Amino acid sequence: MVSQNIFACMLKVEHIGIAVRSLAQANPLFAQLLGQAPYKAETVASEGVETSFFKVGDTKIELLEGTTPESAITKFVEKKGEGIHHIAFEVANLEAEMQRLKAEGFVILNETPKRGADNKRVVFLHPKSTGGVLVELCQEITEESNPG
Amino acid sequence: MVSQNIFACMLKVEHIGIAVRSLAQANPLFAQLLGQAPYKAETVASEGVETSFFKVGDTKIELLEGTTPESAITKFVEKKGEGIHHIAFEVANLEAEMQRLKAEGFVILNETPKRGADNKRVVFLHPKSTGGVLVELCQEITEESNPG
Repeated sequence: MVSQNIFACMLKVEHIGIAVRSLAQANPLFAQLLGQAPYKAETVASEGVETSFFKVGDTKIELLEGTTPESAITKFVEKKGEGIHHIAFEVANLEAEMQRLKAEGFVILNETPKRGADNKRVVFLHPKSTGGVLVELCQEITEESNPG
Repeated sequence: MVSQNIFACMLKVEHIGIAVRSLAQANPLFAQLLGQAPYKAETVASEGVETSFFKVGDTKIELLEGTTPESAITKFVEKKGEGIHHIAFEVANLEAEMQRLKAEGFVILNETPKRGADNKRVVFLHPKSTGGVLVELCQEITEESNPG
């Protein structure tokens, strides 16, 4: 359907999330690697994470440090060590894309989009349905996309 | 130095490499996820991998299946399961960027760039020096960049 192709599509790799033990150590390391300082730091208390952002071309690198024992990032680092945590795709219409993917058999981890860092509404897909890759879908919050 | 800023920089996230057990299974799965068919398949016999490519915005998603027991992809999947394998940054000048990163203390896995998929010369950085992230640097092969 043409309407689905227009409204439910992935626009770009918005960011790559990297789980780190300590932003205090990882920020200068990634600044050296990427040849630039992080341009932004943000706390998402509801997720128990602190983040910092770098930009490379059209994509961001988001470093995430867990700040509570229950944080998904804390658990990831404990279990697997530091490393790439997720890929986030920017979508034009989050609800339309969720509907399309559910119809295709993908498992949405949070049916109600939650507030992520960087002024985004986000949902995650279960890695068991996406070849082991934790996939985030995100949409910028605007007056139009967030009527609440 | 201005000259270093111009010649040794990361231009964009060229692709994200995802290790899979079977392209025959992963290609239709990621085609559903990304809403598009892979646009290219390529074998890199020297690395023991078969690959397929999708494009999302300005970045590619590269699926990799190991074709030999010795392939790094085969070993990765055996040890860690399917999932995100590496991030590849496109650089303007591979040798200049290698020199910059070595001076910063990063460990280059292959001092001599090797031929990767998609008409690229590539080097990898050791994940122990990059916060657990396997980083690839790549540069398109042109007459200018590949005098040999």
